[in-house]
Amino acid sequence: MKDLKIHRQEYLKQFKDRAYRRNVLKQENDALEDQPTEECGIMGMYSYQDIDTFSLSQFGLFALQHRGQEACGIAVLKEGKIESYKDEGLVLDVFKSIATPQLYMGNAAIGHTRYTTAGDKKKYNFQPFFAKNEYDQIILSIAHNGNLTNGKKLRKELEKEGVVFRATSDSEVILRLIQKNLDLGLRGAIKTAMHRIEGAYSVVGMTRNKFFAFRDFNGIRPLVLGVIGEDAYVVASETCALDAMGAKYVRDIRPGELVFTTENEGLKSYMVKNDCVNRICAFEYIYFARPDTSLENINVHEVREKSGEKIWEQAPIEADIVIGVPDSGVPAAIGFSKASGIPFRPVLIKNRYIGRSFIVPTQEMRERIVNLKLNPIISEIKGKRVVILDDSIVRGTTSKRLVKILKDAGVKEIHFRSVSPPIIAPCFLGIDTPVKDDLISANMSKEELKNYLGVDSLEFLSMDNLKQILGNSDHCFGCFTEKYPIENTDQLEDYVDE
Amino acid sequence: MKDLKIHRQEYLKQFKDRAYRRNVLKQENDALEDQPTEECGIMGMYSYQDIDTFSLSQFGLFALQHRGQEACGIAVLKEGKIESYKDEGLVLDVFKSIATPQLYMGNAAIGHTRYTTAGDKKKYNFQPFFAKNEYDQIILSIAHNGNLTNGKKLRKELEKEGVVFRATSDSEVILRLIQKNLDLGLRGAIKTAMHRIEGAYSVVGMTRNKFFAFRDFNGIRPLVLGVIGEDAYVVASETCALDAMGAKYVRDIRPGELVFTTENEGLKSYMVKNDCVNRICAFEYIYFARPDTSLENINVHEVREKSGEKIWEQAPIEADIVIGVPDSGVPAAIGFSKASGIPFRPVLIKNRYIGRSFIVPTQEMRERIVNLKLNPIISEIKGKRVVILDDSIVRGTTSKRLVKILKDAGVKEIHFRSVSPPIIAPCFLGIDTPVKDDLISANMSKEELKNYLGVDSLEFLSMDNLKQILGNSDHCFGCFTEKYPIENTDQLEDYVDE
Amino acid sequence: MKDLKIHRQEYLKQFKDRAYRRNVLKQENDALEDQPTEECGIMGMYSYQDIDTFSLSQFGLFALQHRGQEACGIAVLKEGKIESYKDEGLVLDVFKSIATPQLYMGNAAIGHTRYTTAGDKKKYNFQPFFAKNEYDQIILSIAHNGNLTNGKKLRKELEKEGVVFRATSDSEVILRLIQKNLDLGLRGAIKTAMHRIEGAYSVVGMTRNKFFAFRDFNGIRPLVLGVIGEDAYVVASETCALDAMGAKYVRDIRPGELVFTTENEGLKSYMVKNDCVNRICAFEYIYFARPDTSLENINVHEVREKSGEKIWEQAPIEADIVIGVPDSGVPAAIGFSKASGIPFRPVLIKNRYIGRSFIVPTQEMRERIVNLKLNPIISEIKGKRVVILDDSIVRGTTSKRLVKILKDAGVKEIHFRSVSPPIIAPCFLGIDTPVKDDLISANMSKEELKNYLGVDSLEFLSMDNLKQILGNSDHCFGCFTEKYPIENTDQLEDYVDE
Amino acid sequence: MKDLKIHRQEYLKQFKDRAYRRNVLKQENDALEDQPTEECGIMGMYSYQDIDTFSLSQFGLFALQHRGQEACGIAVLKEGKIESYKDEGLVLDVFKSIATPQLYMGNAAIGHTRYTTAGDKKKYNFQPFFAKNEYDQIILSIAHNGNLTNGKKLRKELEKEGVVFRATSDSEVILRLIQKNLDLGLRGAIKTAMHRIEGAYSVVGMTRNKFFAFRDFNGIRPLVLGVIGEDAYVVASETCALDAMGAKYVRDIRPGELVFTTENEGLKSYMVKNDCVNRICAFEYIYFARPDTSLENINVHEVREKSGEKIWEQAPIEADIVIGVPDSGVPAAIGFSKASGIPFRPVLIKNRYIGRSFIVPTQEMRERIVNLKLNPIISEIKGKRVVILDDSIVRGTTSKRLVKILKDAGVKEIHFRSVSPPIIAPCFLGIDTPVKDDLISANMSKEELKNYLGVDSLEFLSMDNLKQILGNSDHCFGCFTEKYPIENTDQLEDYVDE
Repeated sequence: MKDLKIHRQEYLKQFKDRAYRRNVLKQENDALEDQPTEECGIMGMYSYQDIDTFSLSQFGLFALQHRGQEACGIAVLKEGKIESYKDEGLVLDVFKSIATPQLYMGNAAIGHTRYTTAGDKKKYNFQPFFAKNEYDQIILSIAHNGNLTNGKKLRKELEKEGVVFRATSDSEVILRLIQKNLDLGLRGAIKTAMHRIEGAYSVVGMTRNKFFAFRDFNGIRPLVLGVIGEDAYVVASETCALDAMGAKYVRDIRPGELVFTTENEGLKSYMVKNDCVNRICAFEYIYFARPDTSLENINVHEVREKSGEKIWEQAPIEADIVIGVPDSGVPAAIGFSKASGIPFRPVLIKNRYIGRSFIVPTQEMRERIVNLKLNPIISEIKGKRVVILDDSIVRGTTSKRLVKILKDAGVKEIHFRSVSPPIIAPCFLGIDTPVKDDLISANMSKEELKNYLGVDSLEFLSMDNLKQILGNSDHCFGCFTEKYPIENTDQLEDYVDE
Repeated sequence: MKDLKIHRQEYLKQFKDRAYRRNVLKQENDALEDQPTEECGIMGMYSYQDIDTFSLSQFGLFALQHRGQEACGIAVLKEGKIESYKDEGLVLDVFKSIATPQLYMGNAAIGHTRYTTAGDKKKYNFQPFFAKNEYDQIILSIAHNGNLTNGKKLRKELEKEGVVFRATSDSEVILRLIQKNLDLGLRGAIKTAMHRIEGAYSVVGMTRNKFFAFRDFNGIRPLVLGVIGEDAYVVASETCALDAMGAKYVRDIRPGELVFTTENEGLKSYMVKNDCVNRICAFEYIYFARPDTSLENINVHEVREKSGEKIWEQAPIEADIVIGVPDSGVPAAIGFSKASGIPFRPVLIKNRYIGRSFIVPTQEMRERIVNLKLNPIISEIKGKRVVILDDSIVRGTTSKRLVKILKDAGVKEIHFRSVSPPIIAPCFLGIDTPVKDDLISANMSKEELKNYLGVDSLEFLSMDNLKQILGNSDHCFGCFTEKYPIENTDQLEDYVDE
Repeated sequence: MKDLKIHRQEYLKQFKDRAYRRNVLKQENDALEDQPTEECGIMGMYSYQDIDTFSLSQFGLFALQHRGQEACGIAVLKEGKIESYKDEGLVLDVFKSIATPQLYMGNAAIGHTRYTTAGDKKKYNFQPFFAKNEYDQIILSIAHNGNLTNGKKLRKELEKEGVVFRATSDSEVILRLIQKNLDLGLRGAIKTAMHRIEGAYSVVGMTRNKFFAFRDFNGIRPLVLGVIGEDAYVVASETCALDAMGAKYVRDIRPGELVFTTENEGLKSYMVKNDCVNRICAFEYIYFARPDTSLENINVHEVREKSGEKIWEQAPIEADIVIGVPDSGVPAAIGFSKASGIPFRPVLIKNRYIGRSFIVPTQEMRERIVNLKLNPIISEIKGKRVVILDDSIVRGTTSKRLVKILKDAGVKEIHFRSVSPPIIAPCFLGIDTPVKDDLISANMSKEELKNYLGVDSLEFLSMDNLKQILGNSDHCFGCFTEKYPIENTDQLEDYVDE
Repeated sequence: MKDLKIHRQEYLKQFKDRAYRRNVLKQENDALEDQPTEECGIMGMYSYQDIDTFSLSQFGLFALQHRGQEACGIAVLKEGKIESYKDEGLVLDVFKSIATPQLYMGNAAIGHTRYTTAGDKKKYNFQPFFAKNEYDQIILSIAHNGNLTNGKKLRKELEKEGVVFRATSDSEVILRLIQKNLDLGLRGAIKTAMHRIEGAYSVVGMTRNKFFAFRDFNGIRPLVLGVIGEDAYVVASETCALDAMGAKYVRDIRPGELVFTTENEGLKSYMVKNDCVNRICAFEYIYFARPDTSLENINVHEVREKSGEKIWEQAPIEADIVIGVPDSGVPAAIGFSKASGIPFRPVLIKNRYIGRSFIVPTQEMRERIVNLKLNPIISEIKGKRVVILDDSIVRGTTSKRLVKILKDAGVKEIHFRSVSPPIIAPCFLGIDTPVKDDLISANMSKEELKNYLGVDSLEFLSMDNLKQILGNSDHCFGCFTEKYPIENTDQLEDYVDE
């Protein structure tokens, strides 16, 4: 009881300082989450007939909500005019207030769900981005998932050429590059831009009469193509968005490919660069993508289940039950159970109403928050030898707290399994991982980490097994190997982040 | 493609009518949900020391969010003064804006999460309710879960006695009855009220110096007691709230019991009526309560898992895989799998960002919404014989759509299992079920329903098995048997609902 | 030009501090106004038929807007229910947003326009005040103009008796005293209250079936009675409100009188104290009341015109033109012109859009504000000998600035005439004058003041002449004589103002 | 009393219809005002040093508030960047909320106060207008007073040339014409625009490094030049704005003149067209301009006073008192009194808090509103023969109501004097007069009008006398003569007003 009491004065001091409330507490709460965060989900569509693109876009974004919960936006083209609506919040909150029938019908639309890091959660960074002409009309709009590696460098160059930026996001560099070169025609402008920008980018966009989509030369971030009926095309980050929109999957957009609509001949494909190798991010399968999504024809759920099987083969263990950390650890646990014969029990209950953070005044209260998010069914695990599968270990903080929760519940043995290899390096291609100093596997050996977590055994999925499951060793495995398919130009040239 | 096109005029007409948007569409969307809805979660606490009751109450309510998502509220007692804050929205949304340190410390608090039916979503019906004195000070506050069966009758009687009601909810009848009799002392006033009200009621409350809780003579709605340290007491609808607040479970409040705090002797118990039989609602175990909750010492998850085992025993079947409808169908599917040996696959993916409804302009779009909420991993089920377990079948609409989704995905056989008996009668004791005409099992035989759903076999858990699992045949099984522990006075006397 | 430049840093510093902006600047701006401020205008009405009391009340308050511009409110009685609406702002702004037809019809209403000093501009101090019963219904509502001299003393006494106050205004003391004694009947409760409170009070009020009005034993603040048709009564601070409401003036409410409506016999009068002497504030005629108002059958405009005539007789002077400081100095200037034969010229132009204050960042800018409010027509005064008439001199700051404006315009001679005697003492009976230290005539002889202002001659209306004009020497002349009709109990007993 | 009662049903019907409330009632209220309305006041300034242009602009606009009360705006140039702030409301309301220090300092600013007719009170029509470049930066901003006579024609032409308009106001035509020709240099662009636009226009504007102002070839709307110190220039609609800003009057901007700032040589003048005749609107002197303003070196107050003298000479009459309709009728009454020897009495009291309209539910209530605005001091006029001077008679509605008020007050004889000639034709050069059918003097002879008003005599100032007072017969007298200095191209070519 004693530690619940805190001094009133301490409170008042803390709460008067709004910055404290917003920043410090927020960061501590974020640390409690301790999972890598993707920066975006995107979707776009074009119909040769006038259909309800606005509703369909909402459905698509809703299915991509897991890729970004901070803000979202949709731009719609109808009758040669682009209108845009974007705001902070979840899809169902942002768009419920604009039940304006004017927006509902159109023949193109693009949308974006955004995750943002604490600092730049400013409205000017919400997407889709757009460029206007001198009469205040939107002439170009894009939505971008990924991260440029030479964004700062390009920004400086463009500013010297007279371009004025309105936002701080690197996505605006893509927009302005295309805008600046529109006199080359749209295809020419995009081609020029793609040859100048470096990094990870999956982009959907439109002008006042064309829809387009393109993907970087390594295909780091996913981008899939679908079709509704015969004359409407959809491009989205994941196939689950196609399902939500009632679209049939056609194929993945290829690395280096640009697709765009034509007046009479439907969607055209144009390879801006040939012979690109597909190096799609392995972490999309491990953690980000929805289990019902398939990327490059590999189903995400299956990857996860197989990783559970493989880690059993890699390190068999005797135990009473297998549990998975919801949500992405659950299929792995089922795979592990299948391979090992040890029964799977769904006994870690996740509170489904998470979304925003609690703002609580004391450290003691904040520590309680982990328990709010994951609560075990004690009767099921008490006195048991438990194998627990999680998708990855980043900072190690959540894993450590989870172990404590299990021990408090009377678990006899804990065998921790990460169904990804140790994360030893940050990502600069679209995932928000902590700096190297905060990555626990970059700073501890497996043995040290086992002791730190206080578990009876600890295993990571091996790189070999991961590659085997994905059936491809060309993927970007940068966070596991510190070897990236692209150089981080901005960092090399030491562009200061203002 | 064709059916996606709708006429612009139709749009405009619909959208101009805001009432249409808010009501008609809302109702259609609600129909898509097709699950019974609980009306409340409650919690209260009292500490003999000054602790952060406001944060702890938020944690407790957050854990009870599944019992009501429309509105929530907390009333806090500090320094002899009761302050109340309540609003529409989820716990994390409503309270984030009141980071006012004044509210944080106190020695008592009560809280409420509310589900409301479309009509009376008015602020005056949000709880906790409170009564004021002539100087505008709150002197009494309560939060109620359940439903009175003589609420309308009592309201009319009290109005004749001069009582003025501010809200339309029956919970105010409880408040006013206690307020009116406060000259008998708090215990006397509550006792008087309990003898006059009929129906289902679990209540927490406080005056300016006492905290109390009581439960109806049949114990229809749950209510559990916990303790933090040695000198703080917590009462809540479910044990998961105790876990969230860091409280240790002590026991369930008994039917007919009143507990209240005293100045020096801690919490006192007083049996307002002796020899009450515990008739807690069976549906709490089947659908409402969180799996990590135990009610009357029976764990909810275990009940669900056993119901899967039992329904296998009841009606064995050959199949390739077992799937569960998230969330409450999943443990049943695991139980079924364990008993049958048929592998469990978690292949129905539920979108976690549901909460508010989509407002879309056409029927075609609305029908698409089911797919937004549940999307199957096609590769896992295509060509397979599938057993699917759901907690119950109410209107049958969702089940029918789900079957269609599975068939569209290429499932070979569908064996549908409801792990509750057929629902044939409405509830008037705190659950919002449709009228009898809308209950599909009240209107179709099992065979008819099997054909209607288009499944290869259909089974309901038998009443005998349900009773056996719950180990008690005194539960309220009214919705399965149309036999209720209490008479519905209001209905008998035909009080018109205004 | 030079003095217009200020340092950017100085700006930023000042503006970051919101308190500075709101308080310091506000006070400096207020000082620029330099006129005594009345604290209220009130009106009330009762009709034996159902008429549009809400619209009529707005008209009445609008006519009383000059008595208070900070906030206003109306309470309406209809069908036995009192509803209240009040907010910060002018009458036309506050009520335009409540075009709710429900409020329009009723058979009683009371209203209030409020001036407030900087500190307590809080919503709980807006009037009408109301008291509620235990079911949250308004049972009593009053609006008060004046100031109690034993308000703090009574408040302390009542708090000891268990009364809880919601506001800081002394008007609530009147409300609570009546509320507390309602068991004596309304007449008995008011009588009891009137015998206990001391000071200046004109009050209108209502219960759920009666309208009433009463005035203090000295009749310090005005209160007049009118009638609309045969069965509706109006009570208001000034006759101009009766005109605005289409009511016929009947008579002034008498000092010590209580009027109230009865069920069948119309309005009844009851003298709570007999033989009261009417000591209505002289400053009402000099400055506050509207010129088209008559108080105690004396027209305000005529008083002002006569005061101009009298001051000419008192101190004749040779000059080329007579000007008046708008608005109340103008009739005096016309009287002076009539008596002296010196032509009147309306050459000080007042900006009519004053209301809120400018918020400007520097002292230099603030000083310019006087010129914004009063601008002379230079061609009319250049090289002329000018007599200027103003209603009074309070702090002397505005007069000094005005003299400077005239001199800058090239006036040859300035003869300043105050058509009230020197103000040497503060008011504690409802007018917001500065403390004695700030009253320039309390600190300078006429000769010193003449030199300070830099005028060629200076005269004040003599007390004898003022009394002669008003035809009555019983008025309260406290601010001129420091002799008041009532003792300031609160000050004597040294109740600390919190 | 009887006519005050209205049917509850009538209410409800009316109030449910918001359009009714906003439009119909609003129009009826407007009709009660019955005075021509100016469409704008403008001001601009440029300083070669960094001064507080934002505060000074507020002062200038505040002094021009009488020229437009619906909306206002200021654009400020600082450090090569133009920022704009505009909103509905009075100057003191609109800018109080933007106490942002960033706006305060700058070296150029332009401002606008706007009157708008009911239909197009949309934010996009608020001024200053601005044009942006492709990077969303303001590159040109203007504020316009007047009305183009070929605005619709030019708009159609420009739209054909690809220009896109954002507003419906003709002022945008000026903006876009300049923007389109900026490649000719600023002077060239403005010259081109001035040769293409026709009608009345006084304009202030700025680019990111220059301030400019220009006036149409007839100088219909006023525009004056002033200087603050040695290196800051001010241009405004009236000299009263110069006074308010502490600027010294230099001269009026000439018809056909363009002034603009240069880098080193101060303000330059350039005659876009030579030999223009000054045809400034006579109604500016009669009604619009503030009395302390001088236009073309003629003081407005003096014009009004002389018009009172002249109308006495024109039609002497025996009477007891002279009264003026506030505000612009008062100086005429004083002139009349001076010439005739009949004493002037300021006995029509105008409520100073007018601004927004009352929204009242019935015609009976609306008719009462005239009395709210003007209330006579009955004691001063009862039984008297009264001469009443008003600036003009437009629809005749207000005059008729005023006569009724005077008669109700017991006036014996009423001699009505309009100190302008009969208004027989609408204005299309910047004043919002009703159509010819609504102009009472276009439809009634003087004798008929006398009878209609019910007065004992009626006189209008003669055209000859008006010309003599103004000392110039080149003024635009269009509304009196139906002869205009410019053709109304838009009307001739019958451009439909959408």
